[in-house]
Amino acid sequence: MTERFAQPSKSTQHSGMLELLDESWINLKGLKIYELASELWPLNRSLTGDGNRRTLAILKREIPSLQVHEVPTGTKAFDWTVPKEWVIREAWIRTPAGKKICDFSQNNLHIVGYSEPVHEFLSLESLQERLYTQPDQPDAIPYVTSYYSSRWGFCLSEEERSTLEEGEYEVFIDSELIDGFLSYGEVIIPGEQESEIFLSTYICHPSMANNELSGIAVATGLIQWLSSLQHRKHTYRIVFVPETIGPLVYLSRHLRQMKDNVIAGYVLTCVGDDRAYSYVPSRNGATLADSVAVSVLAAIDPEFRRYSWVDRQSDERQYCAPHVDLPVASIMRSKYGSYDEYHTSLDRLGEVVTAAGLSGSLRAYARAIQALELDYRPTATTIGEPQLGKRGLYPEVSQKGSYEKIRIMREVLSWADGDHSILEIAEKTNSDFREVFEVAMLLEEHFLLAR
Amino acid sequence: MTERFAQPSKSTQHSGMLELLDESWINLKGLKIYELASELWPLNRSLTGDGNRRTLAILKREIPSLQVHEVPTGTKAFDWTVPKEWVIREAWIRTPAGKKICDFSQNNLHIVGYSEPVHEFLSLESLQERLYTQPDQPDAIPYVTSYYSSRWGFCLSEEERSTLEEGEYEVFIDSELIDGFLSYGEVIIPGEQESEIFLSTYICHPSMANNELSGIAVATGLIQWLSSLQHRKHTYRIVFVPETIGPLVYLSRHLRQMKDNVIAGYVLTCVGDDRAYSYVPSRNGATLADSVAVSVLAAIDPEFRRYSWVDRQSDERQYCAPHVDLPVASIMRSKYGSYDEYHTSLDRLGEVVTAAGLSGSLRAYARAIQALELDYRPTATTIGEPQLGKRGLYPEVSQKGSYEKIRIMREVLSWADGDHSILEIAEKTNSDFREVFEVAMLLEEHFLLAR
Amino acid sequence: MTERFAQPSKSTQHSGMLELLDESWINLKGLKIYELASELWPLNRSLTGDGNRRTLAILKREIPSLQVHEVPTGTKAFDWTVPKEWVIREAWIRTPAGKKICDFSQNNLHIVGYSEPVHEFLSLESLQERLYTQPDQPDAIPYVTSYYSSRWGFCLSEEERSTLEEGEYEVFIDSELIDGFLSYGEVIIPGEQESEIFLSTYICHPSMANNELSGIAVATGLIQWLSSLQHRKHTYRIVFVPETIGPLVYLSRHLRQMKDNVIAGYVLTCVGDDRAYSYVPSRNGATLADSVAVSVLAAIDPEFRRYSWVDRQSDERQYCAPHVDLPVASIMRSKYGSYDEYHTSLDRLGEVVTAAGLSGSLRAYARAIQALELDYRPTATTIGEPQLGKRGLYPEVSQKGSYEKIRIMREVLSWADGDHSILEIAEKTNSDFREVFEVAMLLEEHFLLAR
Repeated sequence: MTERFAQPSKSTQHSGMLELLDESWINLKGLKIYELASELWPLNRSLTGDGNRRTLAILKREIPSLQVHEVPTGTKAFDWTVPKEWVIREAWIRTPAGKKICDFSQNNLHIVGYSEPVHEFLSLESLQERLYTQPDQPDAIPYVTSYYSSRWGFCLSEEERSTLEEGEYEVFIDSELIDGFLSYGEVIIPGEQESEIFLSTYICHPSMANNELSGIAVATGLIQWLSSLQHRKHTYRIVFVPETIGPLVYLSRHLRQMKDNVIAGYVLTCVGDDRAYSYVPSRNGATLADSVAVSVLAAIDPEFRRYSWVDRQSDERQYCAPHVDLPVASIMRSKYGSYDEYHTSLDRLGEVVTAAGLSGSLRAYARAIQALELDYRPTATTIGEPQLGKRGLYPEVSQKGSYEKIRIMREVLSWADGDHSILEIAEKTNSDFREVFEVAMLLEEHFLLAR
Repeated sequence: MTERFAQPSKSTQHSGMLELLDESWINLKGLKIYELASELWPLNRSLTGDGNRRTLAILKREIPSLQVHEVPTGTKAFDWTVPKEWVIREAWIRTPAGKKICDFSQNNLHIVGYSEPVHEFLSLESLQERLYTQPDQPDAIPYVTSYYSSRWGFCLSEEERSTLEEGEYEVFIDSELIDGFLSYGEVIIPGEQESEIFLSTYICHPSMANNELSGIAVATGLIQWLSSLQHRKHTYRIVFVPETIGPLVYLSRHLRQMKDNVIAGYVLTCVGDDRAYSYVPSRNGATLADSVAVSVLAAIDPEFRRYSWVDRQSDERQYCAPHVDLPVASIMRSKYGSYDEYHTSLDRLGEVVTAAGLSGSLRAYARAIQALELDYRPTATTIGEPQLGKRGLYPEVSQKGSYEKIRIMREVLSWADGDHSILEIAEKTNSDFREVFEVAMLLEEHFLLAR
Repeated sequence: MTERFAQPSKSTQHSGMLELLDESWINLKGLKIYELASELWPLNRSLTGDGNRRTLAILKREIPSLQVHEVPTGTKAFDWTVPKEWVIREAWIRTPAGKKICDFSQNNLHIVGYSEPVHEFLSLESLQERLYTQPDQPDAIPYVTSYYSSRWGFCLSEEERSTLEEGEYEVFIDSELIDGFLSYGEVIIPGEQESEIFLSTYICHPSMANNELSGIAVATGLIQWLSSLQHRKHTYRIVFVPETIGPLVYLSRHLRQMKDNVIAGYVLTCVGDDRAYSYVPSRNGATLADSVAVSVLAAIDPEFRRYSWVDRQSDERQYCAPHVDLPVASIMRSKYGSYDEYHTSLDRLGEVVTAAGLSGSLRAYARAIQALELDYRPTATTIGEPQLGKRGLYPEVSQKGSYEKIRIMREVLSWADGDHSILEIAEKTNSDFREVFEVAMLLEEHFLLAR
């Protein structure tokens, strides 16, 4: 519509929300958060530990308002307890030929997460029980953890495993499980209202580009954009937490307030590849978060994949659990579990995750936020349709075929009965929320709509 | 069912509603209203003017109860104002070779509706800016208007335009825009109740057979039929108005009463060709007018096309607008915009519109009216199924395959719980409303149903 | 799930409900009720008469708690009256060549049900009016009755009829229509609550294996199983009645109580063949009986056929009639009317009906009863997901692909908000009711769910 009609007045209080988000900004920001992801890639994130702390420190540099919280080992969070902190310094296996393999310093994934310390000499047969591979993807190192029971192990590709000869192997893991802390980050960006939009992403998967790091990157980009806006109707609560235990710890501290205030929320994960758009609903399935996600994705990619609640596998499990029941859904690119590289060393920056993939997610989430910020229920000021022609809003000469130009204007006027929101009008008329909103602004300027 | 069981008693108060409408009557009436359309065809109808007045005078001859109203130029109707009256006497172009083309006396469509007077000599180049064609249909003269801004122009086929040679053209339009009146017709046919059925058709398109004249013809046929009935439960309000401004003027005078009384309404347009049946819903989509339209069309033509509210383009836009919100839908043959001849000189009587096409619409609307008149919620007088056999309503010998005969009777009895109407029972059981109603009458006579 | 996790405690009060019903029991019971059907096969059941009395006597031997009721001829049941009792001793035709055909002692179907007595000599032409065949199935004897108007007739195959030569035929029917009784059987199996599950099957079709006798057999098997249980939450009301008049007589005596107590019911018919599973809904379509039927059938056979209310043809017509309106549906194998052998001599034990077919129905109905008995609305005892790992309910090592094992556990925990029943959780997650219930029991034992 923008090329056809005058733009809404710059003085509109929400104009910043619309204008700061043009395509060149999105593409540039996509590149910047890709750089950030590259910087964060080597850090060994887990449920706890220095990898997480260093990650949060870098995020603090990008997001000055980030607050880092440290929760002591042993702290209760509903049915769960904050585990010991995992310290990991060095880990490797030396083959009978003296070659160092499964070297943690080469790839974070070589060590089973939360492995105990060990220094032993074993036969190949005994070693095999400690090795994890992904036989259906022989070139991939799988991602394996054992958070809540004591063990140790190494991960490697099936290809490498098949080359191991008989003989004595030296295994060495220099790790500790200590009484320490679980670290998480929290950003509150205040708005005019107490109503909150909640975003959650996780910081516990080492060297998983799409299924972890992309969420951190996109969340950071969104926070920078939100912080730059002059006005925000809603308050934004964004958390960087380790999966499962993180949300539970956070909920145990903020559940009452969140139940009172959160009107929509999303789990940001798998938002980095450029192969698909997808949506996992909230448990309820019909919350504001769901409507907005569906509307935005339909406008961006009519082929987007709609999953159902049975397909959930991330922190919406906690946010939507019985007695919590927050309106939290997920907008994703290729969903966890739906792409081959998932949870292996193949889920790499540059290969799976690209700047274009991150930009697409940034666009989708920013549009969702726009919809949440800008949505309202317009009411027509006239009985019957207004005369658009006398306001210069209608072609002067009426001929077959010329009506399409004002289709959206007619739709908005047709539904402006005070019962239907811009979001609902966009849904009913298969239109982009932003186009519908811009038309509504134009009609408001002509006093044809009131709030 | 009628051949299988005794007919309902002639004394049934609604029998007239059913009996006056047999197929031979419908076909004969189709021929008569086709003749009427032929008589109305040459008149140059527009928003205002003598073409409309002459049209209403002919309708008054056919419908003695028709009231003609004249609304002065400048009268306010919500956001709109009744425009000047357009007087058009003569219009043509003379080519450099002296040939008269675009002669209004040959075809009403040659002149852009509401053209100002002009008498000028122009080059071909200057003239071209005043000419309108439909390039994708080179043999068609398009229908073009410019009601609300002053201009003049001519319409012709692309074929003719391409033959125009260089040289000086004389253009002549003998027209006036005067302070006059907007004319419309109104018919009220009283019924036993205050509940109203509303029908609206428009009288403003010159020489458009399906997309205008067919509506006038079918509305006239329906009024004649309704007036001939001994009993009507509902009151009928039928208007002949120019599109858009007409409904707004009418609503500005009658909105309160219509909101109180109208239980169902239809816009009659594009009801003249015999190529399809279609339905445009009301904005609400689930009013009585919608249920009846769908039920009737499903019985007449299971292939009927269901449009949605986004496909509307006629006066339901005003009748269903916010704050008006009347239950008004549309039963059509080939919908405006869906057939090639639409809004061109190809939309002709005899070619697009036929007596058979008009008859089909008459049948559909009459059946809709029957359903609106006759519908009620029957209540079974027995607990469990009644014994049909002892009343001669069931075959005496029971053998495989013989049950189909009494299918509808069983359906009616099954749903006669006082909560379901005949219309709903017809919908639930994929049956024709009239068959269901006749069965209900038969069961009433046997005291198996009560009202 | 049973092989993966510890079984629910044997002390669970409902364990009997689950444990008594293993596959070997079902298969054995299928064989036993097939034997019972074989014993009942020769008896000439009709609306009334000694065939029905002998049938009920044999059932009384199998079901000691069966009560036989005798309702006198002339008794009113809503719109109906109990007819005269039909006594039939002998019936045959002697051909001109002296051969005895259509001999009732050879096949119950040779005589039109409720035939009057006759002893006449007729020409072939006159006889033809008294003969019934199924021309589209020339080798089948059709099943024909004339309950409520006096007549006589014989049924035979079209093949046999075509061999009849000209000449004089002797017809002989030794029957009587006397003031007698309508006989029906009733079983009440008390439960802990007043809530009732209602089962109805009919005893009026002579020599129809699937479309009658299978229902009697499966109902008997279910009653024996229900009686053997230590605990029943609901009370069970099961009736063996002649079709149509039987339910009406029964309802006329028990309607008030049934409307107060029956929470779900089924008509058992066509439950003996092994070719399909199908479901006919209640009139309401969304009762507990419907949900349970759909859930159970989806788990047993995802290809099961869903019929709609317009496909009903049995006693649900009475049980769901206006003013009765009980929640009664039907779980069937091949539905009446859907298989060729229906209502002919081809609907035979051993050919259409098999022990495997009966076992399948027994399984389906028993699972429906399990669901009705065991369903409840669990409530999670934790906020957020519980930590399954520390209870040994979660794999210690987390690797891609390993999550499927605890899918159902997660689903149950996800929906345990006190608003969703086990049945609803099974539906939402495309799971078997029993698997969901077993998981819920396991979670209850770990104090993760409460009632």
